Amino acid sequence: MQQHIKAPFHNVTGGLFDSVIKADVGEGAGKIIESGGTILAWADPDFPDPAMPASVQQALIDSVNHGVSSHYVMPIGPRELRVAIADKIQRQTGLDLDPSRNIIVTPGSDSGLFYAMYPFLESGDEVLVPTPTYPNNMVNISLMGAKAIEVPTQAENNYQIEKSQLEKHLTPNTKMLVICHPNNPTSVVYRKEVIADIAEFVIENDLILICDQAFEDIIFDGIEFVAPASLPQMLERTVTVCSMSKGYGLSGLRIGYIYTSDTLIDKYYGAAVNILGAPSHLSCAGAIAALHDDTIINERQVRLANRRATVCEIFNSIQGVSCQAPESGILQWINVENIGNGADITQFILQDQNVLVNPGGQYGKGFEGYLRLIYGCFRDDVQLFNACERVKDGLINFK
Amino acid sequence: MQQHIKAPFHNVTGGLFDSVIKADVGEGAGKIIESGGTILAWADPDFPDPAMPASVQQALIDSVNHGVSSHYVMPIGPRELRVAIADKIQRQTGLDLDPSRNIIVTPGSDSGLFYAMYPFLESGDEVLVPTPTYPNNMVNISLMGAKAIEVPTQAENNYQIEKSQLEKHLTPNTKMLVICHPNNPTSVVYRKEVIADIAEFVIENDLILICDQAFEDIIFDGIEFVAPASLPQMLERTVTVCSMSKGYGLSGLRIGYIYTSDTLIDKYYGAAVNILGAPSHLSCAGAIAALHDDTIINERQVRLANRRATVCEIFNSIQGVSCQAPESGILQWINVENIGNGADITQFILQDQNVLVNPGGQYGKGFEGYLRLIYGCFRDDVQLFNACERVKDGLINFK
Ligand SMILES: Cc1ncc(COP(=O)(O)O)c(C=O)c1O
Ligand SMILES: Cc1ncc(COP(=O)(O)O)c(C=O)c1O
Repeated sequence: MQQHIKAPFHNVTGGLFDSVIKADVGEGAGKIIESGGTILAWADPDFPDPAMPASVQQALIDSVNHGVSSHYVMPIGPRELRVAIADKIQRQTGLDLDPSRNIIVTPGSDSGLFYAMYPFLESGDEVLVPTPTYPNNMVNISLMGAKAIEVPTQAENNYQIEKSQLEKHLTPNTKMLVICHPNNPTSVVYRKEVIADIAEFVIENDLILICDQAFEDIIFDGIEFVAPASLPQMLERTVTVCSMSKGYGLSGLRIGYIYTSDTLIDKYYGAAVNILGAPSHLSCAGAIAALHDDTIINERQVRLANRRATVCEIFNSIQGVSCQAPESGILQWINVENIGNGADITQFILQDQNVLVNPGGQYGKGFEGYLRLIYGCFRDDVQLFNACERVKDGLINFK
Repeated sequence: MQQHIKAPFHNVTGGLFDSVIKADVGEGAGKIIESGGTILAWADPDFPDPAMPASVQQALIDSVNHGVSSHYVMPIGPRELRVAIADKIQRQTGLDLDPSRNIIVTPGSDSGLFYAMYPFLESGDEVLVPTPTYPNNMVNISLMGAKAIEVPTQAENNYQIEKSQLEKHLTPNTKMLVICHPNNPTSVVYRKEVIADIAEFVIENDLILICDQAFEDIIFDGIEFVAPASLPQMLERTVTVCSMSKGYGLSGLRIGYIYTSDTLIDKYYGAAVNILGAPSHLSCAGAIAALHDDTIINERQVRLANRRATVCEIFNSIQGVSCQAPESGILQWINVENIGNGADITQFILQDQNVLVNPGGQYGKGFEGYLRLIYGCFRDDVQLFNACERVKDGLINFK
């Protein structure tokens, strides 16, 4: 049957017959957990500790007891959830959206990102992807038979996207730009001027912008977050993809959402049941409760802000290793190029310390000298610091 | 931006700017419910009554209380769930599958059906689809730029698939056959000999078979159900797509699963996080409990078996209308060709009686003279019979 599989799927990696280790493919992560290992490689807040917020727990139990959550919700998501999402978007970006014309709920933002791109991309299309970035945003493009064109950003420039670099990679086949803002893996927030430049570039060249804002909810040091869709003429050419997984720490519920113009939502509503199915009814109840509870994000923000300095100190104390305090979210990006290749180091740390981190090369060509780890794992600071100390020991032992 | 949307999405119907009424698109169903209407058009057992089985409720509450269900499960589904699924498949089909090499959990079987087809289909491919069938199985194909070739079955032949008809529609571009077994909308189960013919046809012509078995769990009158994948040489060329929504009545949880050979599962595991994301953690806990509780399906089977005769009587008592007792599941297929077109009648019944049913034409060309309704709605028989009586009144009033 292999001969019937279409070309874009020939290179799918991490399945059964592959030596590639990917934390989120197959039973990879499960096997490490079973062997008593520590995973700092899943972008899952507080993982693996029980951490369901009390308000969400209560809403879920009420919904279970009521019994109606055995039934489908509308494939675009229940109206009450879309209203709560519209309020959140209004508070965060100033955009005044219609819950019935601009917003669709998705079963997590991973399927949301695929769905966001799918009505546009076909074989022959090129998509600009500033790197490093969330790997799925490149894989999605190639699964659709289109081509991801990596546009590397520079550490010296705080990984900001440069319009001149985008222009250099533009061809007549360029159809789309995909950015991850705040960025996974670097945690960097694109500054206001950079977003303005990106908007100009997108409008001038008549492109679609896919903006992956999974990490928008927790930003440090008062850095201003600007959603590209909030700039003039940009809502109509931006498909913004968001998640309840990271800021709210509700990855297990699988709730994300997309917002855009009504012209594009028309297509997303029309094909939802085919490609997405529908979100979980219970999860929608949990997400509504979370969106009404400001304490969830505020508490996480404070807890992580306090952790950042210690984590950075641990890694900066290693000779040849350096990192900066994250600008957002739960990710720590670490420069290890002076001691070796990130993929080799990841393998070594797993064997030496039974801790899994992510090699930088997964996030784009040219970033092989980096590691990413989730400093937002564990509820308890000391447990996280201990896991970081084990990564440190691994880095020191590596030769 | 519309000019950037690829051709297969130009004809997506039911979104914002469309007069087409589809019960599962946009806010269509929601608006009817708000207006006090009755929906017999969503294939959702017991809808709209609270109907979560007690064992599932308990498992969900335990999982919420434990608090760990805020976290991701593996994108292929937790091993415990895949083991329970393998046991179920063994009992139902005799197939002895490896939970880590043959099975993947999907967030519902709608996304599962799209995912099952996606690694194969591209522009230029033709797919044979015996009709009438679940409409998404045709829409999926066209969303991928491939072409669904309808192969109508005949009421006189109990809607069984005929090998000679399949052969008549075969071309050098035929890559796949998609069947819905038991069938939605007719409820018909393909007989053992028919499945043997289909297997022969698939093998002789080197095709992929996608088998949508969403309705496999409840079959009446002792009709033998044969899964095509259980025939010799067929596991490797069949992708079987199943659901916890229909038999277990857990549509709101969004749990389905796919089983096939390890060669193909390799691809499905590899691309899962990209296209599917992952199932809901809580929903997996609920599904595990359901799979361990035989009473759920047994109780539904008895309840529906008892309803069938009364429902048929109601419709057969109308001049020019006829139907047969369902062979499976929750669907009643009704011949109304002597009184008018199914689409017109559906519209009329909605206005006259505020009850929504489905027009037969949605399920394939040539079936415009039929209606489908969900006689598995409501816990209470009398409520369902009353709703059927209203449909009857609408049919009588229609001119
Ligand atoms: C940048 C980014 N976007 C999207 C996602 C998908 O998250 P989810 O599907 O849980 O919403 C992730 C998950 O790691 C991510 O890191
Ligand atoms: C034949 C058939 N297959 C699959 C599905 C999808 O069901 P789910 O996504 O809830 O598993 C349906 C839903 O109506 C159906 O009728």
